[in-house]
Amino acid sequence: MMIADQDVLTMARLLHYPLDPFSRRVRLQLSEYGSEVELTQERPWEQRPGFLQLSPSGMLPVYIDDDKTVASGIEAVSEYLEELRAGFDNSLIGATPAERAESRRLAAWFDGKFYHEVGAPVLMEKVIRRFLPPETGGGAPNMNRVRAGLGRIRQHLEYIGMLAEARNWLAGDKLTIADLAAAAHLSCIDYLGDVPWSGNEAAKTWYQRIKSRPSFRPLLADHVRGITPPRAYADLDF
Amino acid sequence: MMIADQDVLTMARLLHYPLDPFSRRVRLQLSEYGSEVELTQERPWEQRPGFLQLSPSGMLPVYIDDDKTVASGIEAVSEYLEELRAGFDNSLIGATPAERAESRRLAAWFDGKFYHEVGAPVLMEKVIRRFLPPETGGGAPNMNRVRAGLGRIRQHLEYIGMLAEARNWLAGDKLTIADLAAAAHLSCIDYLGDVPWSGNEAAKTWYQRIKSRPSFRPLLADHVRGITPPRAYADLDF
Repeated sequence: MMIADQDVLTMARLLHYPLDPFSRRVRLQLSEYGSEVELTQERPWEQRPGFLQLSPSGMLPVYIDDDKTVASGIEAVSEYLEELRAGFDNSLIGATPAERAESRRLAAWFDGKFYHEVGAPVLMEKVIRRFLPPETGGGAPNMNRVRAGLGRIRQHLEYIGMLAEARNWLAGDKLTIADLAAAAHLSCIDYLGDVPWSGNEAAKTWYQRIKSRPSFRPLLADHVRGITPPRAYADLDF
Repeated sequence: MMIADQDVLTMARLLHYPLDPFSRRVRLQLSEYGSEVELTQERPWEQRPGFLQLSPSGMLPVYIDDDKTVASGIEAVSEYLEELRAGFDNSLIGATPAERAESRRLAAWFDGKFYHEVGAPVLMEKVIRRFLPPETGGGAPNMNRVRAGLGRIRQHLEYIGMLAEARNWLAGDKLTIADLAAAAHLSCIDYLGDVPWSGNEAAKTWYQRIKSRPSFRPLLADHVRGITPPRAYADLDF
């Protein structure tokens, strides 16, 4: 898709939400590629018509390139950026077919399994419900759903820990979308103070490494109105 | 990942299940690329250890290339095949960045939204439960879940119909993974006789076109024990 002519862009733009894990992953990818972008905050649950036109599924992120090409949804945006922004030595998907299959498999694990089991229910209850009007489900979080979601984090931390002990990064020797996806999803839950880091040393060490990267800094400065992250959220020595 | 040395392959192999929409999409892709593959049926719910080693998330399909490279999960397998099997003129993702973003956006729509709203609950209740032992949920389908899932098909048919009326194929001029994903997901429900085709002429016409392709023929010959598809399932003039 291309946006209409009257919208003149001088720089690429990303529609994102600070506690949307898919938006976070793309912000990390852009920064790792060394690619600048103008951020525009979008609250996807408000279903703004102009947003739904760019992303009919209602999912973030939406990337509008400086030539007006539009990519929406994590798979399309991630692959788009890799094809157009990755240079010879900074691929975030991998160099060989086997590396590329592995990084994509793991990114899909976090975008699918982690998000459905943990991220979607916890973020809906603890974040989005605050902003919804009462007639569409706004109000207090359903703590049973929160507990069920959080109860499933440990198995994901175990999987991360196992991979991080066997490899340099989650998918192999180099940092890939597997690390960025995992960290993006976890970081939203970490903003709420709900990741049991003490339960898994290897996963914690891996997260410390990725949290220390310059690309992560803007995420640690994010702030959502009415929800103050715990001090440890932005602390590299959490 | 690469499989161990003792497993000698002479041809690429696909672990699939006949009524798994992701497996179906990859069978279609392989056929459209003109690439041969040996099919091995896998019942993912049995969680066979050898299968979980290749696909820790428990999702199909798994593609094992003739050089022993393993790709698992729809995103990894689809991109792997596009990178290694698509020739100059038979890309299934698209030629330009905008086309590629659009085909991936729509494939993600069906793999995410359609599957979670319709495919996963309906196939769980009407297919997988038949094969599960009673202690892990086997038995009669929960018809409330089936009805809730099927109740959401119409909006997807409407979206397909709208796209098919505006374009030659769902993502644009050419057949892409958007068409193959949509058709693969719908075809599993169609095997059960549960797609209300008469409600949307444009979507039906699009499905007739894709169902008539040689790549679709093997899917129309699929048979799952104990579940006989309606005559219209394999009929090109349904």
